[in-house]
Amino acid sequence: MKSITTVVMVLLLTVFSNLLNAQTTNPEKQLRILIIGAHPDDPEKAGGTAAKFVNMGHKVRLVALTNGDAGHQTMGGGALARRRIAEAKKAGETIGAEYIVLENHDGELMPTLENRRKVIRLIREFKADLIIAPRPNDYHPDHRYTGILVQDAAYMVTVPNIVPEVPHLQKNPVFMYVNDRFQKPNPFEPVVVVAIDDVIEKKIDMYACHESQMFEWLPYNRGGLDEVPDTPAERRAWLAASRKPASAGIADKYRNKLIELYGKEKGSRVKYAEAFENSEYGSPLTEENIKTLFPFFD
Amino acid sequence: MKSITTVVMVLLLTVFSNLLNAQTTNPEKQLRILIIGAHPDDPEKAGGTAAKFVNMGHKVRLVALTNGDAGHQTMGGGALARRRIAEAKKAGETIGAEYIVLENHDGELMPTLENRRKVIRLIREFKADLIIAPRPNDYHPDHRYTGILVQDAAYMVTVPNIVPEVPHLQKNPVFMYVNDRFQKPNPFEPVVVVAIDDVIEKKIDMYACHESQMFEWLPYNRGGLDEVPDTPAERRAWLAASRKPASAGIADKYRNKLIELYGKEKGSRVKYAEAFENSEYGSPLTEENIKTLFPFFD
Amino acid sequence: MKSITTVVMVLLLTVFSNLLNAQTTNPEKQLRILIIGAHPDDPEKAGGTAAKFVNMGHKVRLVALTNGDAGHQTMGGGALARRRIAEAKKAGETIGAEYIVLENHDGELMPTLENRRKVIRLIREFKADLIIAPRPNDYHPDHRYTGILVQDAAYMVTVPNIVPEVPHLQKNPVFMYVNDRFQKPNPFEPVVVVAIDDVIEKKIDMYACHESQMFEWLPYNRGGLDEVPDTPAERRAWLAASRKPASAGIADKYRNKLIELYGKEKGSRVKYAEAFENSEYGSPLTEENIKTLFPFFD
Amino acid sequence: MKSITTVVMVLLLTVFSNLLNAQTTNPEKQLRILIIGAHPDDPEKAGGTAAKFVNMGHKVRLVALTNGDAGHQTMGGGALARRRIAEAKKAGETIGAEYIVLENHDGELMPTLENRRKVIRLIREFKADLIIAPRPNDYHPDHRYTGILVQDAAYMVTVPNIVPEVPHLQKNPVFMYVNDRFQKPNPFEPVVVVAIDDVIEKKIDMYACHESQMFEWLPYNRGGLDEVPDTPAERRAWLAASRKPASAGIADKYRNKLIELYGKEKGSRVKYAEAFENSEYGSPLTEENIKTLFPFFD
Amino acid sequence: MKSITTVVMVLLLTVFSNLLNAQTTNPEKQLRILIIGAHPDDPEKAGGTAAKFVNMGHKVRLVALTNGDAGHQTMGGGALARRRIAEAKKAGETIGAEYIVLENHDGELMPTLENRRKVIRLIREFKADLIIAPRPNDYHPDHRYTGILVQDAAYMVTVPNIVPEVPHLQKNPVFMYVNDRFQKPNPFEPVVVVAIDDVIEKKIDMYACHESQMFEWLPYNRGGLDEVPDTPAERRAWLAASRKPASAGIADKYRNKLIELYGKEKGSRVKYAEAFENSEYGSPLTEENIKTLFPFFD
Amino acid sequence: MKSITTVVMVLLLTVFSNLLNAQTTNPEKQLRILIIGAHPDDPEKAGGTAAKFVNMGHKVRLVALTNGDAGHQTMGGGALARRRIAEAKKAGETIGAEYIVLENHDGELMPTLENRRKVIRLIREFKADLIIAPRPNDYHPDHRYTGILVQDAAYMVTVPNIVPEVPHLQKNPVFMYVNDRFQKPNPFEPVVVVAIDDVIEKKIDMYACHESQMFEWLPYNRGGLDEVPDTPAERRAWLAASRKPASAGIADKYRNKLIELYGKEKGSRVKYAEAFENSEYGSPLTEENIKTLFPFFD
Repeated sequence: MKSITTVVMVLLLTVFSNLLNAQTTNPEKQLRILIIGAHPDDPEKAGGTAAKFVNMGHKVRLVALTNGDAGHQTMGGGALARRRIAEAKKAGETIGAEYIVLENHDGELMPTLENRRKVIRLIREFKADLIIAPRPNDYHPDHRYTGILVQDAAYMVTVPNIVPEVPHLQKNPVFMYVNDRFQKPNPFEPVVVVAIDDVIEKKIDMYACHESQMFEWLPYNRGGLDEVPDTPAERRAWLAASRKPASAGIADKYRNKLIELYGKEKGSRVKYAEAFENSEYGSPLTEENIKTLFPFFD
Repeated sequence: MKSITTVVMVLLLTVFSNLLNAQTTNPEKQLRILIIGAHPDDPEKAGGTAAKFVNMGHKVRLVALTNGDAGHQTMGGGALARRRIAEAKKAGETIGAEYIVLENHDGELMPTLENRRKVIRLIREFKADLIIAPRPNDYHPDHRYTGILVQDAAYMVTVPNIVPEVPHLQKNPVFMYVNDRFQKPNPFEPVVVVAIDDVIEKKIDMYACHESQMFEWLPYNRGGLDEVPDTPAERRAWLAASRKPASAGIADKYRNKLIELYGKEKGSRVKYAEAFENSEYGSPLTEENIKTLFPFFD
Repeated sequence: MKSITTVVMVLLLTVFSNLLNAQTTNPEKQLRILIIGAHPDDPEKAGGTAAKFVNMGHKVRLVALTNGDAGHQTMGGGALARRRIAEAKKAGETIGAEYIVLENHDGELMPTLENRRKVIRLIREFKADLIIAPRPNDYHPDHRYTGILVQDAAYMVTVPNIVPEVPHLQKNPVFMYVNDRFQKPNPFEPVVVVAIDDVIEKKIDMYACHESQMFEWLPYNRGGLDEVPDTPAERRAWLAASRKPASAGIADKYRNKLIELYGKEKGSRVKYAEAFENSEYGSPLTEENIKTLFPFFD
Repeated sequence: MKSITTVVMVLLLTVFSNLLNAQTTNPEKQLRILIIGAHPDDPEKAGGTAAKFVNMGHKVRLVALTNGDAGHQTMGGGALARRRIAEAKKAGETIGAEYIVLENHDGELMPTLENRRKVIRLIREFKADLIIAPRPNDYHPDHRYTGILVQDAAYMVTVPNIVPEVPHLQKNPVFMYVNDRFQKPNPFEPVVVVAIDDVIEKKIDMYACHESQMFEWLPYNRGGLDEVPDTPAERRAWLAASRKPASAGIADKYRNKLIELYGKEKGSRVKYAEAFENSEYGSPLTEENIKTLFPFFD
Repeated sequence: MKSITTVVMVLLLTVFSNLLNAQTTNPEKQLRILIIGAHPDDPEKAGGTAAKFVNMGHKVRLVALTNGDAGHQTMGGGALARRRIAEAKKAGETIGAEYIVLENHDGELMPTLENRRKVIRLIREFKADLIIAPRPNDYHPDHRYTGILVQDAAYMVTVPNIVPEVPHLQKNPVFMYVNDRFQKPNPFEPVVVVAIDDVIEKKIDMYACHESQMFEWLPYNRGGLDEVPDTPAERRAWLAASRKPASAGIADKYRNKLIELYGKEKGSRVKYAEAFENSEYGSPLTEENIKTLFPFFD
Repeated sequence: MKSITTVVMVLLLTVFSNLLNAQTTNPEKQLRILIIGAHPDDPEKAGGTAAKFVNMGHKVRLVALTNGDAGHQTMGGGALARRRIAEAKKAGETIGAEYIVLENHDGELMPTLENRRKVIRLIREFKADLIIAPRPNDYHPDHRYTGILVQDAAYMVTVPNIVPEVPHLQKNPVFMYVNDRFQKPNPFEPVVVVAIDDVIEKKIDMYACHESQMFEWLPYNRGGLDEVPDTPAERRAWLAASRKPASAGIADKYRNKLIELYGKEKGSRVKYAEAFENSEYGSPLTEENIKTLFPFFD
């Protein structure tokens, strides 16, 4: 009978922990944020913002549209995909978010109807209020086609006859693009810049979970494999040193926006930030819903 | 023998009515305008201009690349497609233009070679002088891919080995984009703005034919189904009230262009307008051909 | 606190009912049977066998690869798909089996890699011991391509690098084709014929759940819509009268096989049957595993 | 005014000639036969039967699914396609039948949904009672995929939600395969063999219209270009000598069937024949409808 | 200057070795045999016959249409593909034949036009007299689609406008299917059975080169990984023991054919054989060309 | 023995000529430039720069992704493709560069994974340091999709698991766009403008090799076929007169850039130029590598 007792205990624990959760967040105000990237580690671009949402009791789901089975110098195929999925899962747990990896070959993502339907399902099943995704211009074709697939899913999530098995959304959600550095055909123009100073270490922790990328593939790919330290602690520090400047650069580049949103004093002191542009194909970001959807600026 | 007599009468009538037509319009100057949209009701964006062309004796053909079989809250599939086709036919008849609906699932239009060939055939068989279509940026993926398909057909209509069954055009026609509100990657920039004050009611009449959209799907989709009036007369008035502002907004937004084209006095008084941008992939709109192709500015 | 108590009660009940289940069936011997068809109502071809498996405590899952959104004279699209899904669910409940409907347009099923991967996932996630599907020759293209998709998934379910997210099976399951009447290129040759006399009414009940097909589309399609009775009871009787002969015909056609499997006496008396041919692309049906996989012949 | 008079004359002639046609055939019994092949000249395999149908006042339409733009040693592309279309038109006129050529590259026909829809439209728009097409096994991939496309269109022509723009057929037509010599996976098995002695010269005439094939490509392809005579008369004779044996071979091979259908005396004397197998995916050929659909055996 | 000398020496050696080759075989009678399989190790099914051809001075090229990047329990992707390519190269060298591996994902081979064109190019560039490939029925979808791709390339290799960059063949080559055990829709029927007793060890040597398959994946896949010996010598023996029975089984199964081809005495003594069926889509195997194409039976 | 001597002589010559080559150009500094266009004659847009690279001892390869089998008023298919390939070869020889033509139908180039892989292979096998290609906006769809295919290949050339058969590049090469006149969505912005005064006649010579285009199709297509002179000399002069203004226009339009790069004096005098924009998806063009990759500005 031991196993029954255990099962009941676990179930009770689950019940109470859910109640506890329900107490800390008003369920009517709990936001649902879906962050979509091409590869495991891409949603992390908005990882600081994700961590802040979770800390406030909101629900965040991270999604990689490909399984990352190509980007590595020695591994590949299913073994690599399974390692990447495990790393992603761990990265999600770091901030308390679910991290889903779809089955598409890395380096082969195409803007097919089939993939569009998968994105529609993702958005609907999660009942997302806010979707964050890349713009359709970036150096990696998978990133660009992720941007196109999410654009192609926008609005269609409200049409009942499309993917009729999953109830449609009553309202087109707000779609945001996460910051990138590309200028053509048009540069990234943020309307929201989020200070992530309080969660920058969490963001680095998330990246650190992607060991096969941070300490293997990406250094190899840029010709710096021998710079990677050996011990976990050194690696964590080395990663932080190489990754923090990106978030710091965003804060500096969009300082005016930070000041506009946080006020002169707070905005001037922000060290690390993530920036977001409103997609024209989702619901517009207005003065009202910006406060609800990005509850960071009071 | 009654039926033979009837047939002959009908044939003679047809012959004389064609002669009559030939008298009202100089066939050498009759323009052929093809207006392409994604769904039944999309070509109506240029519906005022279409009505003006027809009124002057020119030939207009409206085309929807999809059959509209998805955009509805309760209907779907073939029944919806057939209803949409009937509505489109009626809308075309409102102004005396043919309205063609192709067999593509609504919400699934893709920029395939097969669809490109269909657009090439449409343009060639109609011997279009002027094609009007959406830009490849808009909120609905079907609109975007309509824009791309028309772009991909431009120039190719002049290549004899492409779709060799249908005689190629000797000259690339002029392709125009109809106005939209999207800013990324670049905003709409009209070179022609057409005053439609004299046909604004016709344009509303055309829209009113699309009952399954105007009074059912679109209000449902924006969460305002209960605002739709019950009687036909009230519906017509309600539709006019909600649709006219768009055409009025175009007139205001591009007032300078209207004044440039119509002169200070006329241009200032225009209440309703439609705007068009010249596509770089068709023949250029020049000072000469603009007068022929848009014979509205004297 | 009422809701917590209720939840705990429900959970405890679930636990005990699972325990109870475990008692009635030896979990090590519980078979997992996956029955795949093209449309909701197609898996019912093996519905009698399915009911028998469930009655013995085995686990059965029925799957339609398309959502049935085309086969109807007046409905179509999402509304029809949702109706079909509800009917399928009810049919499954009739015998205590799960009934899954995939999102593919009815009449448009193609043997794509994407669809093959879906079938691989279905088989793996269910950990199927036995798969039942149509042969790749039948009058409806969706049936034929269902046959091909299942063939193309066979063996691949054992390859870890294919669909690497879902653990592969250690052994290729047994794949069976369900009976059909087609002779070209080769006729159906059963190795197993299952007597379903004890569940024939259940099978009719399952079919009766597909109201939009049994009492609307199929009679319309064969030109006999006016023969459909009005009341549920009359309809049930009418359906039984028209459906039972098929199962009776199988028993007669393969009488020798029934006698071979059930013995002279039993086999001669069987009134209703379903027949199955072993696919060469799965694990072979042997004298040993036939007893385990079809535990009906003692 | 001359041209008006001419037009009226032509119209009157058309009317009377239609009346005349109506007299020779009872319109209620006029059959509609659609003969589908892969390339211009392939439908001619049933060209004798086609000529017999037309002679009896029935309506025949010949269709090539590809435009024949590849099979030639020196020409290619659009120029070849246009020549092939003209040859096909002339071949059709030889027997008084329409001959349609679709736009698909020769040598690239694939069993896509798009092509399947084209075949469905062909069958529905022609309201075919009888469709004749190749089996899906033959030496040329275009022939095989023509066979598959026609199979995939069978039955679907009765489903209203498929290609909803074109009214569906109330009944699945009869589909027949035309004779071929291939044995794997199963040999051709005729149920109907039609004596074409009275139209064998017409059949040769039809073939002779395909000059670019009969006198250029096919002789080149089999290494016998120098055997082709120079003058039209010699060519016609040479073609007859090389083509007639095929039809004679069918008569000999299926002599028993001829005797069964025509009686001992007539059947024994038949010199030239064409043979047809009933497809299991269309309506079955029964003792009743065989007399209506093949009104040759009294 | 050392390296120049070396290069010249190597070049001279190459020249003389080529001359030597030229002496042993009359170049006008040298056959060109192309053996196509789905994965590295599949062409080996005809490996004995391949070795015999090479030994007689004929030219053999082995081709795998996929790169084998999936079939392994721990490796995958590019690393596995590169290992497989190296193994194939070594296997080819074992008998003095080239072994080509195309870039298609293992487990994802589809019968696309693009892949068909690749097969056409392979056949033309090699100027194959004889092509050996699987039938389109086998347990692995890649095998089946290899069969279909080769069928779809047959005949098309003679059409100049198809793949116009590579000169077409003047004559359709002979296409043979290699033996398999599948019965549906029709069993394998050999017309040629080749005794390979003199090269059976070579054939085993070829297989032994595919270490990642013979000693890793295939034993794993059939649940017998622990039976694989440790040392190369033991492995070679173990492989021979498990592989020879297949070739022995062919000899026994088709003993009559062996006797027919080799005479009573020789044919009765054959221990190991490979069998081939003539494809109806290539040039027929006749009494004349069988002696030239299979010069083994004197 | 004559032939052996000859072969050895040729081999020795090859060896020494390679040595000689090695002396005239420092192999470590020999650049490898890959110029990709859609049709034979498109890479010529950078033909002057190509000629200058070759003259300095660098290696240039020109590639057309389609075989040009459609763009002609009377020819088509394989015959046209073969003519275009021969013209391209000759054009390449004019400047001492290889000119490769891929097998894709003219007018049907699509951004498929398969085509992307071909471009990746092209770049890797050539070990390109610098790739020049069109932007994804131009009047011809094949030009646009060439631009997209090259963008989609960028970076992926460094990922070992993509096209694993061909060794990946250690570093993403520099990708440049060649000048075009299109303004939407963003105008061409050169960072490098190369004076080609010294090779302008070579560039015209290259164009003149494409006889089927320069003197047949292009004049026909723009309605000026009767302006084409008859004799080769007149044609050459006529072509120069019509082609030089384009290169002259580039020099004028980007005069400031020429002065910036060549200095006031030289830059002001340049008559003919070609311009290049740096793609953001390749390695950036920096102050250092611009001197190496464009060694023209000292």
